[in-house]
Amino acid sequence: MSTGSNFGKLFSISTWGESHGEGVGVVIDGCPSGIDLNEEIIQIDLDKRKPGKSIFSTPRKEKDKVKIMSGVFNGKTTGTPISLIVHNVNHISKDYSKIANYYRPGHADLTYDLKYGFRDYRGGGRSSGRETIGRVAAGAVAKKILKELNIKLTTFTKSIGNISINPDNFDKHEIWNNNLCLPDKTCVQKTEDYILELINQGDSCGGIIECQVDCIPPGIGEPVFDRLDAELSKAIMSIGSVKGVEIGNGFMTTSLTGSENNDFYRCSGNKIIKESNNAGGILGGISDGSKVVIRAAIKPTPSIKKTQKTVTKDNDNIDINIIGRHDPIIVPRAVIVVESMVAITLVDMLFRNITSQMNNIKKIYL
Amino acid sequence: MSTGSNFGKLFSISTWGESHGEGVGVVIDGCPSGIDLNEEIIQIDLDKRKPGKSIFSTPRKEKDKVKIMSGVFNGKTTGTPISLIVHNVNHISKDYSKIANYYRPGHADLTYDLKYGFRDYRGGGRSSGRETIGRVAAGAVAKKILKELNIKLTTFTKSIGNISINPDNFDKHEIWNNNLCLPDKTCVQKTEDYILELINQGDSCGGIIECQVDCIPPGIGEPVFDRLDAELSKAIMSIGSVKGVEIGNGFMTTSLTGSENNDFYRCSGNKIIKESNNAGGILGGISDGSKVVIRAAIKPTPSIKKTQKTVTKDNDNIDINIIGRHDPIIVPRAVIVVESMVAITLVDMLFRNITSQMNNIKKIYL
Amino acid sequence: MSTGSNFGKLFSISTWGESHGEGVGVVIDGCPSGIDLNEEIIQIDLDKRKPGKSIFSTPRKEKDKVKIMSGVFNGKTTGTPISLIVHNVNHISKDYSKIANYYRPGHADLTYDLKYGFRDYRGGGRSSGRETIGRVAAGAVAKKILKELNIKLTTFTKSIGNISINPDNFDKHEIWNNNLCLPDKTCVQKTEDYILELINQGDSCGGIIECQVDCIPPGIGEPVFDRLDAELSKAIMSIGSVKGVEIGNGFMTTSLTGSENNDFYRCSGNKIIKESNNAGGILGGISDGSKVVIRAAIKPTPSIKKTQKTVTKDNDNIDINIIGRHDPIIVPRAVIVVESMVAITLVDMLFRNITSQMNNIKKIYL
Amino acid sequence: MSTGSNFGKLFSISTWGESHGEGVGVVIDGCPSGIDLNEEIIQIDLDKRKPGKSIFSTPRKEKDKVKIMSGVFNGKTTGTPISLIVHNVNHISKDYSKIANYYRPGHADLTYDLKYGFRDYRGGGRSSGRETIGRVAAGAVAKKILKELNIKLTTFTKSIGNISINPDNFDKHEIWNNNLCLPDKTCVQKTEDYILELINQGDSCGGIIECQVDCIPPGIGEPVFDRLDAELSKAIMSIGSVKGVEIGNGFMTTSLTGSENNDFYRCSGNKIIKESNNAGGILGGISDGSKVVIRAAIKPTPSIKKTQKTVTKDNDNIDINIIGRHDPIIVPRAVIVVESMVAITLVDMLFRNITSQMNNIKKIYL
Repeated sequence: MSTGSNFGKLFSISTWGESHGEGVGVVIDGCPSGIDLNEEIIQIDLDKRKPGKSIFSTPRKEKDKVKIMSGVFNGKTTGTPISLIVHNVNHISKDYSKIANYYRPGHADLTYDLKYGFRDYRGGGRSSGRETIGRVAAGAVAKKILKELNIKLTTFTKSIGNISINPDNFDKHEIWNNNLCLPDKTCVQKTEDYILELINQGDSCGGIIECQVDCIPPGIGEPVFDRLDAELSKAIMSIGSVKGVEIGNGFMTTSLTGSENNDFYRCSGNKIIKESNNAGGILGGISDGSKVVIRAAIKPTPSIKKTQKTVTKDNDNIDINIIGRHDPIIVPRAVIVVESMVAITLVDMLFRNITSQMNNIKKIYL
Repeated sequence: MSTGSNFGKLFSISTWGESHGEGVGVVIDGCPSGIDLNEEIIQIDLDKRKPGKSIFSTPRKEKDKVKIMSGVFNGKTTGTPISLIVHNVNHISKDYSKIANYYRPGHADLTYDLKYGFRDYRGGGRSSGRETIGRVAAGAVAKKILKELNIKLTTFTKSIGNISINPDNFDKHEIWNNNLCLPDKTCVQKTEDYILELINQGDSCGGIIECQVDCIPPGIGEPVFDRLDAELSKAIMSIGSVKGVEIGNGFMTTSLTGSENNDFYRCSGNKIIKESNNAGGILGGISDGSKVVIRAAIKPTPSIKKTQKTVTKDNDNIDINIIGRHDPIIVPRAVIVVESMVAITLVDMLFRNITSQMNNIKKIYL
Repeated sequence: MSTGSNFGKLFSISTWGESHGEGVGVVIDGCPSGIDLNEEIIQIDLDKRKPGKSIFSTPRKEKDKVKIMSGVFNGKTTGTPISLIVHNVNHISKDYSKIANYYRPGHADLTYDLKYGFRDYRGGGRSSGRETIGRVAAGAVAKKILKELNIKLTTFTKSIGNISINPDNFDKHEIWNNNLCLPDKTCVQKTEDYILELINQGDSCGGIIECQVDCIPPGIGEPVFDRLDAELSKAIMSIGSVKGVEIGNGFMTTSLTGSENNDFYRCSGNKIIKESNNAGGILGGISDGSKVVIRAAIKPTPSIKKTQKTVTKDNDNIDINIIGRHDPIIVPRAVIVVESMVAITLVDMLFRNITSQMNNIKKIYL
Repeated sequence: MSTGSNFGKLFSISTWGESHGEGVGVVIDGCPSGIDLNEEIIQIDLDKRKPGKSIFSTPRKEKDKVKIMSGVFNGKTTGTPISLIVHNVNHISKDYSKIANYYRPGHADLTYDLKYGFRDYRGGGRSSGRETIGRVAAGAVAKKILKELNIKLTTFTKSIGNISINPDNFDKHEIWNNNLCLPDKTCVQKTEDYILELINQGDSCGGIIECQVDCIPPGIGEPVFDRLDAELSKAIMSIGSVKGVEIGNGFMTTSLTGSENNDFYRCSGNKIIKESNNAGGILGGISDGSKVVIRAAIKPTPSIKKTQKTVTKDNDNIDINIIGRHDPIIVPRAVIVVESMVAITLVDMLFRNITSQMNNIKKIYL
């Protein structure tokens, strides 16, 4: 399948839907039978990306209630496709003539027109952030599978603008205790002040999200192209607004020497451990059993009140000020999206690894 | 196909081969008929990754001569699979008992054992850098296609260790005039000195490679998962030693504001141009017609003479000093590998875009 | 994607839904932008598979009204995924305890339990004929694309039991003039009598469906595995109740000699024509420009009133008589399903062929 | 991957090569590690398709010696791609000007030209029967895996022309005891006489091949599109010269009633058995644990000495008599090809089924 709205090979998701159409949804195919699933589990994650929770996200009120349409029977997955739908309810039938007519800087308005000849301009259409609802819903199912395998994800805001968390203050219980998903409570106030100042200026900012995966089995990742880090990079980079991805030491590794960057092995009892984890848990594209660490660079929200220069479809130069319900920063709402994409990728790669050894296949069939 | 050694959906490559086996190769499927192709064209790129050209790469002498086994008739591609083979000739039948028995830090020795139960340890087996020969050979074919479409790639070393090129001195004609693929001749000496010092210390270093794509048509990239930037990220991250990928402003974008980062549109005649290119030529995962810019972070070569701590398969802690023919820096030899993966990805995405509009299909069949 | 509920690579459909769940649906990805589409067009084909139209199909009344959820804007496809839903309305909340407990001969009850550990037994769950609603809805979209390319499909009942149509009486306008999709009005009465007799005996029958494709361009089909005939065979065999597929002369070809079976070429002006079409329009897996002919063998409906021997989940031997709303013959309702699968396959293969020649790619981009 | 020369999703093969080029080969990706493999095992099957063994096949002498280029170390598969090559040695550098200039009836000469603009006409190029060498080599590896899972294949000639084997005389040990792969020794002489008569007339014939699979686990096959029967049909129909495929009762089922065709279940101890196997071991696209039965209709060899009418590239009507080394019947040499494709499909589908239940996944990772 080469069509673009599908991700994953054995645990596979297909998303559909436009921002102001009938709804958005996802079909999950390849979810094994026998997993407890209900709408409440999925709703928990959807609520994490819900807007309107604080001054730092758009004041739009979207209920975003998910409905399971298929693939679950008597509270358990049946092994058949799971169709999940969120109906759009808050799309005010407003006048779109303006937005239809010009190209917002930093958005996909122009490129959709160039690719398809025209676009559904209502609320950004398919390029809207609402597209991630399907990802998060599917991610909740993926996380349910990871939980059954004791694999844990921790995802958080690592920096906003130039303000970074202090690793010494890291406390994962803080992540959902503040509006910015910061795991360091000492930098919350400073960061909020920074964003508020930008809001006053009609401007926006970006940041870095980190996802850590604990207890992932070793051996996950398919050399040479479908490496674990390669698949995770695609997954993360496919999220709107992401402009960079790194694993472990990432870009910093380029200014280290080999002796600084290599993780040395030691025996601990009859277990092999690494003295450091600069590699971020992946060597040769395959998980080594230590913590997988991946980071995403999120650009500043492109929709800003500040005056911007752009052009109309009729080729006129104009100035615009985007007034409306927009997030001054996407980062906090994107945390659960990043986590969802990592979870979906991990499940797919866990499944794909099974046939790497004949012994595994015999375990199933003999 | 979910097996890992295959890349691309319409222009698709399958690589095979181990470092010290019979040879390495690639099968290209989906190459259109009617393209002039011969071994010389491919050999030019293979020679760019050939080792032994300077003190900065391994003194191994590998001829790496490519042979076209199928898919070309009377000097033209036939539309059927193109099989390319490079026979291994310089694999000295030496004693591998040592390397077979311990895990080199920073290499995939341990993870291959964990995944497959054992490994072909001769010269790194499948995880060796020789695996990239297939990529470069296929990349040469992809670049031939891009050339017919007037699309140009420029790939170079942007930084080594903490030394970066000065953009003001950028001269693309310098790239292949020095041993390090630096497009800024003013920093060549300084960089060589830095690496020589590390060689003396038995250490190694990494760096950043940048690839720029000029004249790519707008509209390339398949939302929402198979975005152009997502596919490029996977392609780049699938190269051994790459630990980070970024598009346009990349990670730097996280410390900019929306008004600083957005690229404003202006009309120039009846053409829309952007006043800046912070986005790196991609918006919403689709090319906008401006220069595509992608960067890869390459880690320092893991094989170093300096003493390292590791473990044996029998669970003993040992110290090792890796003596042998190794690159003190991978970056210059990786430049053509990065360029190849970008070229292969672009061809695939150009092909995939064609069916985005019914008008295109009518152009072919009516 | 290796998950089973997805078909097609460039024009790709993913179906979901169980017989008595919330609904059934399909997501079409890879439909080009710019095609006129509305619910009425799709409904026409859905109504052709609707039950309850005559004594020869189940008296269940299903409205099966389709709703377009995404991918269409202002009456035109946008190039983004088209999500189509048919809500289930006629699933009476009856007592399923009986059917849950035993395995109906000729059905998938046992194999679903063996594969997944349990099954949604309500109305056959995912293995119900209602699963084909998604195929027919997607097929209607595919047929819209074929129409724009002037490709025509004619699909009909060729035989029921031992009664075959007489090719000399073939009249395609008769196909939808009788309840059995017979293009030969002289055999309608005889066939109806045969089925009525079987109904009286509590038994059922099968038959052969033929699909003819006119005006398909030459060159369609990807050697060597994804031949046009191979892809069509998979498409047809994936329909429940199909037990055989043949192209052109099919099985009859095995009793002909080479000189009888080869289609000779002649020049007609500057066009090459074939004197016969025993090959069914496909040579070497590639369309030759003449009529493509494919046939499907449909088994008798497995649900019958007549006493059958089977077993319960608790391993008891029992006798059953399946009383309910069942089709005495599936063939007429399957005609549109076969046509839909052929149409979907053709669109996919037409799209996939485009990149076979460099000239085609230049037509798009230069 | 949508390129046509690739088959299978988890156990995946990519073939390459033309009849009179450098060689033909296959890359197998997704073969698990830890399987004993050497060239002798593969050669056994290749020798079964080797020509020149009797008067009933072409007198060409091809050694067709296979070489393992990668993916095997110390006699065991490593889990990395297995590249297999057979160099072409017997392609006499003859004058091809004649064959280059006209289109042989029943061959792919015309369709390759129509698809690709031109063709490698030497010996049929890519459309030659030599293409199946890669399939048979890969099939030998697949059969090695099936053997480790105790799954057995029996493949034979069921009919030639109008002469069928008598099921009462079936003896599988006879299959390789005669030149025609007939499992009924009582019909060998009659069939040989029939073919000899056709040889004398400069004509050819076809036949039916049957493959039976014993001991396949239940639950194999992915509803709804990637059913076991659908995947097998594609696999078989992708072999050159196959014009029809059927499962179990196949086309005969269309003249049976439901009560005749349904297989009734009975308990035998605590095992469920079927009283008959009209379904050919597959229900709802999923294996039921009984014997899988699939049949292929092979057309008569198109290359015949008898005068045929055809056209030249310059649009002249001509008469031709194809003199050369051709099989008067393809069936016996195709038996191992059919078996190979069934084996490859089964391995792929066995692998794909593993993730159907969460319990299986836990068995591997917990």
